[in-house]
Amino acid sequence: MPASADIITFSQPLENGNQKHDISQSYEDVTVENKDDASSLSPRPGNVIEKSSTSVSWFASLPDRKRHFQFLKEAVDLMLEKAVFQATKRNNLVVDWRAPEELQKLMDLDLSADRVSHEKLLQLLKDIIHYSVKTGHPFFVNQLFSSVDPYGLVGQWLGDALNPSVYTYEVSPVFTLMEEAVLREMRHIVGFPDAHGDGIFCPGGSIANGYAISCARYNFAPDIKKKGLHGLPRLVLFTSEDAHYSIKKMASLLGLGSDNVYLIRCNAKGKMDVQHLEQEIQRALEEGAAPFMVSATAGTTVLGAFDPIPEIADLCSKYKLWLHIDAAWGGGALMSKKHRHLLEGIERADSVTWNPHKLLAAPQQCSTFLLRQEGLLSACHSASAQYLFQKDKFYDTQYDTGDKHIQCGRRADVLKFWFMWKAKGTNGLEQHIDTVFDNAAYFTEKIKKTEGFRMVLWEPECTNVCFWYLPPSLRGQEVQHDFSERLHKVAPRIKERMIKEGSMMVTYQPLRNQPNFFRLVLQNSGVERADMDYFVQEFERLGSDL
Amino acid sequence: MPASADIITFSQPLENGNQKHDISQSYEDVTVENKDDASSLSPRPGNVIEKSSTSVSWFASLPDRKRHFQFLKEAVDLMLEKAVFQATKRNNLVVDWRAPEELQKLMDLDLSADRVSHEKLLQLLKDIIHYSVKTGHPFFVNQLFSSVDPYGLVGQWLGDALNPSVYTYEVSPVFTLMEEAVLREMRHIVGFPDAHGDGIFCPGGSIANGYAISCARYNFAPDIKKKGLHGLPRLVLFTSEDAHYSIKKMASLLGLGSDNVYLIRCNAKGKMDVQHLEQEIQRALEEGAAPFMVSATAGTTVLGAFDPIPEIADLCSKYKLWLHIDAAWGGGALMSKKHRHLLEGIERADSVTWNPHKLLAAPQQCSTFLLRQEGLLSACHSASAQYLFQKDKFYDTQYDTGDKHIQCGRRADVLKFWFMWKAKGTNGLEQHIDTVFDNAAYFTEKIKKTEGFRMVLWEPECTNVCFWYLPPSLRGQEVQHDFSERLHKVAPRIKERMIKEGSMMVTYQPLRNQPNFFRLVLQNSGVERADMDYFVQEFERLGSDL
Repeated sequence: MPASADIITFSQPLENGNQKHDISQSYEDVTVENKDDASSLSPRPGNVIEKSSTSVSWFASLPDRKRHFQFLKEAVDLMLEKAVFQATKRNNLVVDWRAPEELQKLMDLDLSADRVSHEKLLQLLKDIIHYSVKTGHPFFVNQLFSSVDPYGLVGQWLGDALNPSVYTYEVSPVFTLMEEAVLREMRHIVGFPDAHGDGIFCPGGSIANGYAISCARYNFAPDIKKKGLHGLPRLVLFTSEDAHYSIKKMASLLGLGSDNVYLIRCNAKGKMDVQHLEQEIQRALEEGAAPFMVSATAGTTVLGAFDPIPEIADLCSKYKLWLHIDAAWGGGALMSKKHRHLLEGIERADSVTWNPHKLLAAPQQCSTFLLRQEGLLSACHSASAQYLFQKDKFYDTQYDTGDKHIQCGRRADVLKFWFMWKAKGTNGLEQHIDTVFDNAAYFTEKIKKTEGFRMVLWEPECTNVCFWYLPPSLRGQEVQHDFSERLHKVAPRIKERMIKEGSMMVTYQPLRNQPNFFRLVLQNSGVERADMDYFVQEFERLGSDL
Repeated sequence: MPASADIITFSQPLENGNQKHDISQSYEDVTVENKDDASSLSPRPGNVIEKSSTSVSWFASLPDRKRHFQFLKEAVDLMLEKAVFQATKRNNLVVDWRAPEELQKLMDLDLSADRVSHEKLLQLLKDIIHYSVKTGHPFFVNQLFSSVDPYGLVGQWLGDALNPSVYTYEVSPVFTLMEEAVLREMRHIVGFPDAHGDGIFCPGGSIANGYAISCARYNFAPDIKKKGLHGLPRLVLFTSEDAHYSIKKMASLLGLGSDNVYLIRCNAKGKMDVQHLEQEIQRALEEGAAPFMVSATAGTTVLGAFDPIPEIADLCSKYKLWLHIDAAWGGGALMSKKHRHLLEGIERADSVTWNPHKLLAAPQQCSTFLLRQEGLLSACHSASAQYLFQKDKFYDTQYDTGDKHIQCGRRADVLKFWFMWKAKGTNGLEQHIDTVFDNAAYFTEKIKKTEGFRMVLWEPECTNVCFWYLPPSLRGQEVQHDFSERLHKVAPRIKERMIKEGSMMVTYQPLRNQPNFFRLVLQNSGVERADMDYFVQEFERLGSDL
């Protein structure tokens, strides 16, 4: 039989042969579809019989209608009810806190030789939901991610059901094209000329920043790919003292050494001090080292500050340094006409990290790494494995994009974000962004006017709002020598109460010489101004007696 | 109100205040739970009212019963029916193949300003399912992964609904403990003394192998973390020529350079030649380089060969080299009393990569990296970011395990595997493994007896079976000078037909001086001996006229 796309004839009658189908199932299992309905699955031509589903073993990794349908339905109903709807209701707890030792006893986590029943499995699901932190709860404002976006969730669930690995077009045709569509649109929004360039989805912003260092280094000295760093001058990169820790972590992993990340001072607003940057570049040159890259941050982790990209870009041009923008956190603001000025100059970057799972509230994980230069990702990372990236395939193997990545197997993280984008449109994503920024501004104004609250940054730029809460006992005590020390201890105590009650989750941390302060972070556009009022009341309720 | 775990009283009446609940919803939204029922969510004490769900905006990243319930149910029903049950039915196609240009036109992938309706979203879901490769189909035997395990899927879906990030106990209490339980059991199965050691879940086996190189390098010269490779002797590691390409790719990324991965010859069975290994270690020493690591493979990507671990371990002891075992593919065999001998000696390893998403058919991605030595992962990779890993928390911060990782945010990949393990028990996982090995043995015996098939390895060790299919026109032509060249072209042509028909998916590749051959790989324990017969028939049907 010659090969031809025409062979997939939907109209071809299905040969049932001596099939042993359970009749009650076969109307669902076997469907001869209309040719024009692309939504249906295609029956396979040929004469091989379908196995009776009764022959599928209990341990088999194959869904079986008789064995699994009811269980799957019950499990899904339970998840929707408890993990999706109840878990995001304001009247329920954000967490039912248990200490590790206690939780260990409450949950049956141990693995054993024997399987457990479906009933027991459903109970385990309930336990997991019960004791997990409800990161989709409106009062979970603890990290740079939150939400259970309903459309993101559907995209995620479909990805799981299809269980793809996005390395070749052959295995992931839809997701290969979908990645290109989304990454192109993101490059367009960043402002790369004609949306040209390259990009990938990565398992998190840290690894995206690792890609940035890797590409910048390859661009500086392509021999490193084969020869390594041995015998080269000491390579140096620059980022601000408030940049995400992944820059140092990745510099260690990449063999550059964390000491060779020169940390540039931040000004009072948490922005990179450009004058100090130039001094440090010159210092590195005087030391005989080889500066090759600056990583500027668009939305710092703690303060939410945006580094001054145009001035940094000027220095990068002057000294021929790769300009990376870590917009993992702040990138979402590019979606908003009102807020995208925060990232002015980003179109001059060589590369950008932008995590839709942060400000845009896509499900974990959805991180992108975008490049101005086409071909570099592949040149830098490809290994051309013959078993996977065969060049004698019958289709255009430019669509086999996997070799650009440091991962081999890889989830289709694009799907959830693409699906959200379709469901909301760029306009909806813009309204999402404007809403979370509006909430942050409202909260900021509110605590500025409320006794006992002190801003860390007077004008937060992003949706992280950093503040101290001073219990009445500390107010007016600012001149006391132990004020800072006492204030430092307030946040951990309030946090302990907050978590043990489960009434909200807001993180705290010190920064440089500042004592512990709270950082409330907003990404959930279902959160409203009344919730901001609630947060203020909760701090007062939890901390007033300290 | 003082902090106390007792404050979470399930019996405390919920204050509804002036709630504006839609009555039809409130019985589901607000549930005052029984104290003893850990499966229920806890109502939050306090006096803040629940928002009426009618106030949730259409673009909001918050599930809303009125707006989303029906859509979510329909989407889930569609996925279960089409992506889970129909997609795994033998009577349906593995793929309805479309060339990239054609698929681009068939699917509406473009993003626009306006949102689309729920109806359109459901149609898009159908299109995605229709044109995606059905990796859970019994006839998808194309990669080192396959299956849509029903229990793995439930675990995956629940992880999505809870949307955690496993870096701190505070944010991921359940998954932190679950990871420890699973990793400990895996170390036990590997055979590390008393299951001691360490481990992490990684986004894929390539990155797990990267962790191995990073840990081995840190163990060799801990200063590299801070100082980098600058000024050090040239570091060299060893792996076989049939090892996975990630070893070289990661050596490049880590700044060691792919040339400093010395490739050791394989013998006729695809196993690392231990004599050549010793010669290469000596060569590196003579060159003044610094050998620090051997990566042996337990289940090579193409041939499925297992390197001789005991002999390699002896050499590693002799030359003080880190012994890593890349058992990403073959690790699952450890679950089987019958097959675990293949990995004899693995208990002597310093580190192990083992991907449950491969031979054990957990959903993508589920990769683990296991270490004998406790504390090293953290010493090597920690950055101690104060905003996340605060040491003044009220609980034992040893449970904040995130800093061991190179990722910051991270999915709970443990859940799907843990849930499968609970559902099947270790016994069920063993039967799964025994089944896929039995199928491989049956297929091997079958093609040995079938005209036109030639084994690449006479006795495959793992479940990858490599073979040539000779069309009748090539049989008896082995002595012709162009035989190899003609044979090389057969596999791509059969593959093209196979994909265009969508009747099965089996990959092919060349290896060293061997012309293209097929590699059929089995991980799906729902696949049966009759399916093996089908594969043989299909090769004959697709290739006999070539």
